[in-house]
Amino acid sequence: MFSNDAKKRLDRGRQKVLDAIKSHGGTTLLSTGITGDDARMAKAAVDAGAKLIEPNHPAVALARGYQGVTNMHAAEMVRHEISLAQMLEVSKGVRNVVGPDIFITTGVPGGFTEINPVPLSEEDFLNIANAGIDGLHTHKSSIEDLKVWVDNAHKYGILVDAYIGHPDDLHTFGVPAETPEDVAKVAKQMEAIGVDFIGLMTGMSYEGVEAGKIHPVIEARVKALIGAVNVPTIAEGGINESNFKAFKELGVNILVVGTALDNIAAEAIKRQVKVFL
Amino acid sequence: MFSNDAKKRLDRGRQKVLDAIKSHGGTTLLSTGITGDDARMAKAAVDAGAKLIEPNHPAVALARGYQGVTNMHAAEMVRHEISLAQMLEVSKGVRNVVGPDIFITTGVPGGFTEINPVPLSEEDFLNIANAGIDGLHTHKSSIEDLKVWVDNAHKYGILVDAYIGHPDDLHTFGVPAETPEDVAKVAKQMEAIGVDFIGLMTGMSYEGVEAGKIHPVIEARVKALIGAVNVPTIAEGGINESNFKAFKELGVNILVVGTALDNIAAEAIKRQVKVFL
Repeated sequence: MFSNDAKKRLDRGRQKVLDAIKSHGGTTLLSTGITGDDARMAKAAVDAGAKLIEPNHPAVALARGYQGVTNMHAAEMVRHEISLAQMLEVSKGVRNVVGPDIFITTGVPGGFTEINPVPLSEEDFLNIANAGIDGLHTHKSSIEDLKVWVDNAHKYGILVDAYIGHPDDLHTFGVPAETPEDVAKVAKQMEAIGVDFIGLMTGMSYEGVEAGKIHPVIEARVKALIGAVNVPTIAEGGINESNFKAFKELGVNILVVGTALDNIAAEAIKRQVKVFL
Repeated sequence: MFSNDAKKRLDRGRQKVLDAIKSHGGTTLLSTGITGDDARMAKAAVDAGAKLIEPNHPAVALARGYQGVTNMHAAEMVRHEISLAQMLEVSKGVRNVVGPDIFITTGVPGGFTEINPVPLSEEDFLNIANAGIDGLHTHKSSIEDLKVWVDNAHKYGILVDAYIGHPDDLHTFGVPAETPEDVAKVAKQMEAIGVDFIGLMTGMSYEGVEAGKIHPVIEARVKALIGAVNVPTIAEGGINESNFKAFKELGVNILVVGTALDNIAAEAIKRQVKVFL
């Protein structure tokens, strides 16, 4: 491969993200769920100012009613059966309607910690790049697996966003880290192997927090992440209209929002259908 | 083929539609656009009471950003390139999440008056039936073409909804009929060849109508259709929150709404993304 071509491609992608963070005052949105995989809704998100879009394979399982799944938990169990070809079609279509300046990071089968192994070939990474995808939204759960992934992706000019989870998480969405100190340690390891954007899983496992607040355990973990690395930071999971300002105040650079947008669209559809009936 | 099996299948589909019309007081909704092809939004529509769902190939072109199309007019020009396999995948997925009691009528490439001819084989009709599709949403533009379509569909137990247009329509979405008398004549011809639900195209060509009203030309055409046939009647095109009651008052049995629902979802997404940013 031509390493300078790849480097320039990586630089272009990184610049899109840095520009988005800057233009949104330090914290930008990574818009996913239905705004990641439905070109109509991706365009709506971009028209409203979103600069970062994330199609991912569990959300496509929901979009296609694959195996009848109707919630994210069920979708996570079958997501590895969504094909790479489907994710490339989705990503290309989103690229077609949002234009070249939007950062697209895609979740592909094999890029998460899948129930059944999904190997990707070098040609697959080439096809991912050729689909107009800037980055891979990645949920591998060991530094070793992540290194294989980052090396392959970077070779073809594709950036990687990866995540830190907790050993007790219901679904494994990242490299586990139990304490804030562990979060900082894992984040530094990720940065050292070249992960381009480092995220923390902030939802699913914590309940009973006052509206508008962040659970203190999560807050300590977010702070540990932000203090540990120089690359842009991400928070994913459980972010909604009630608590997003609290995340912004912590200084995290990117907020991933998917389910909250799905719910907003579904509620709007329900209200309107009831009007017609 | 086993004609009695097909007949029973047709009867089950017809009964779903008749039950929906009855349960909604004489006029029900055929929910399409994003509620026809995205399983998440189809479920939202059904949860709100919709009983009839329509995936169609131009809307799928929009959903997939196919060739970069971002509006229905552009989608109509490329819709014939969406594959039958894609429409079957979409329809199966919607069936998975809405259950067996919802009526699904699907627009497939070849079923409209396509720019390039798309022939369908007998096996294609069998596959359509096996995807759990009750009916074919059809926009052929001659009684002869329609008869070929109806005969093939009925053989495999698939119902047909077909439409009457106007010779001056921008896109050809039905058998042309210039006057209300022509509408009545074409509707009777359609009923005679076995079309199961007969629709009138009511949008696109007429502007400048007061909010909440129907253009008098359209009103006369709807009345002519309703007066001419015994099968359930449909109005499609330009139906929105402002004018749907006027259509109900005319006594049309099924209102097709797609773009209005797409717009509602897109506006909800835009508002929410702006909140997050």
